[in-house]
Amino acid sequence: MNQRLTKLMNWLKEENIEAAFLTSTENVFYLSGFRTDPHERLLGVMVFQEKEPFLVCPGMETEDVRNAGWGFDIVGYSDTDNPWEFISKQVNRRVHSIEQLAVEKTHLIVERFESLQETFQPKQFRAVEEIMHELRMIKDEKELKILRKAAKFADFAIEVGVNEIEEGKTEQEIIAKIEYELKKKGISEMSFSTMVLTGKNAASPHGNPGDTKIQKGDLVLFDLGVVYKGYCSDITRTVAYGEINDEQKKIYDTVLQAQLASLEKVKPGVTAKELDQTARKHIAEAGYGDYFPHRLGHGLGVSVHEYPSITETNDLVMKAGMAFTIEPGVYVPNVAGVRIEDDIYITENGPELLTKFPKELQIIK
Amino acid sequence: MNQRLTKLMNWLKEENIEAAFLTSTENVFYLSGFRTDPHERLLGVMVFQEKEPFLVCPGMETEDVRNAGWGFDIVGYSDTDNPWEFISKQVNRRVHSIEQLAVEKTHLIVERFESLQETFQPKQFRAVEEIMHELRMIKDEKELKILRKAAKFADFAIEVGVNEIEEGKTEQEIIAKIEYELKKKGISEMSFSTMVLTGKNAASPHGNPGDTKIQKGDLVLFDLGVVYKGYCSDITRTVAYGEINDEQKKIYDTVLQAQLASLEKVKPGVTAKELDQTARKHIAEAGYGDYFPHRLGHGLGVSVHEYPSITETNDLVMKAGMAFTIEPGVYVPNVAGVRIEDDIYITENGPELLTKFPKELQIIK
Repeated sequence: MNQRLTKLMNWLKEENIEAAFLTSTENVFYLSGFRTDPHERLLGVMVFQEKEPFLVCPGMETEDVRNAGWGFDIVGYSDTDNPWEFISKQVNRRVHSIEQLAVEKTHLIVERFESLQETFQPKQFRAVEEIMHELRMIKDEKELKILRKAAKFADFAIEVGVNEIEEGKTEQEIIAKIEYELKKKGISEMSFSTMVLTGKNAASPHGNPGDTKIQKGDLVLFDLGVVYKGYCSDITRTVAYGEINDEQKKIYDTVLQAQLASLEKVKPGVTAKELDQTARKHIAEAGYGDYFPHRLGHGLGVSVHEYPSITETNDLVMKAGMAFTIEPGVYVPNVAGVRIEDDIYITENGPELLTKFPKELQIIK
Repeated sequence: MNQRLTKLMNWLKEENIEAAFLTSTENVFYLSGFRTDPHERLLGVMVFQEKEPFLVCPGMETEDVRNAGWGFDIVGYSDTDNPWEFISKQVNRRVHSIEQLAVEKTHLIVERFESLQETFQPKQFRAVEEIMHELRMIKDEKELKILRKAAKFADFAIEVGVNEIEEGKTEQEIIAKIEYELKKKGISEMSFSTMVLTGKNAASPHGNPGDTKIQKGDLVLFDLGVVYKGYCSDITRTVAYGEINDEQKKIYDTVLQAQLASLEKVKPGVTAKELDQTARKHIAEAGYGDYFPHRLGHGLGVSVHEYPSITETNDLVMKAGMAFTIEPGVYVPNVAGVRIEDDIYITENGPELLTKFPKELQIIK
């Protein structure tokens, strides 16, 4: 039994919950090592207090599940089967009844919820999210290695993007080039839609990349990440194309100093809100307090947004093993939009920066 | 009130359902013209029998909703608001109570289902899917124009892919090039993960594109589509790289003739199963009956897979205005994998082919 499953089983015992049925791509991957997008088909891992878990998937994927290292039962079904019958049989072999059933309330759809209700008639459905957030928040050595590699691809992508900057080129053209070069390196999925925003578009918290052309005097903002072996990276860099004015420079410097100040505080024991407040205070003192409308950062791992959430009010105590972003930003309409984001891992001694692309203001000629 | 909303409102009256709450990107787009991926945030359109509908979305998107042409109330909420309070107020202005509430049971998550339950305490939740499938199945003139354009981009993508074929190039490299050229033309989303499969990989119904290199004597299979103005295209072509053997040729010819035979039957009044059976019979007679393991095709529109489903058993009568794929395939392990897929629109007089890339066997030198 892997540690993750054991911890979840212990939680079920503590909470007096007979079983948990996890259905999201992310949690199934986290528990089983098998990652797939099942589209409209059912995918799930059923976990018990004492008995061995089993995994449900479309029949044609059972071999892939085995290859991913899942050593327990696999329930494969075809499009004409009723998977709930199979699931019911597997459950009956393990427990007499399920009075408390934990599910992903933020993922499970009503149709399946009704099937579970009908099949097992539990007295109560409980949410499994909190314990999964907690487990996933602390990364082990193996996960760290993958996150480092994912971050390295993000650095590479920024480099590609910066090298593409040229008068008259559109945001969309640069995105195409970035993703092309990543695909050639075997990256088949981005963490989220790649953003390249230039000039006024970057200065609007609303900006969507499109046909806007890069012009001299623009700040160009890149925000992107890749999925590598099931783990996400997320980086933002902002560079200048040609000479920029003093206010643009001041904004850039404010964001950079805020980011560095917050980074300096990172160590086990600091709270999430101290990190956010450090950057926020710096930005407010520079006169841009009203132009930093989002949280400082978010955890990342199997999902590009996971725990911990680095907000002004979260008093969560940061621990060694957490991975998250620090990404202050200032967006002054018609003047400048700047955000600088790194992926951080907390060690006992302080932060390890996973993303390494330079942050000093770069002026592209 | 647009026709789509009117039809849904009429259905609510007939079924004696006070309200429907639609939450998927696709159905919200279909009813409102506004398309967004809200990620973990709540998005929805609430529709009533007589009263005006309203749309719920993250606050920063309200302007985009207006720009998309939505003329009714918009409920925007921030991350610190409780959107259910706002929704409740809007509902109370319109109806006294909701005893029957229709929702997307294949989309709504349990957490929101529980919020709806708590807020409105309906006696019953009903599924809204069937009526939405029915409405979306018949495409109007405006939708047809968009589908034609989406199909044209798919043709273009195949052309790019075929031109990239070269000894030693990997599937992934060709995918990268195809998507790069599409992105440069402003296509920011594919209908699904682009597939380029070569040789044995194409001959396995299981194939995933990767580092497999193209070699002389391979059949190369492309399956891809784009999202254009909210509508999907979906095309498959298989081409030969260098000389292929007689059995590969026979398989290609079998699939092509099966596709053409089925196409010939397309007109209002034919049933879905007649179309499937026509192709299936042809393939069986050529001796490959065991190697055509999937349905003949599927509807396409706002979703890449929607109604009608073209299966061996579906006795749905096809009508003018339906758009769907015809895509027979034969996959003989270690010999050949061939699939040929077109997007079709039914007119009163028969099929209009939306995808036009040539289908005769092409041998790339």
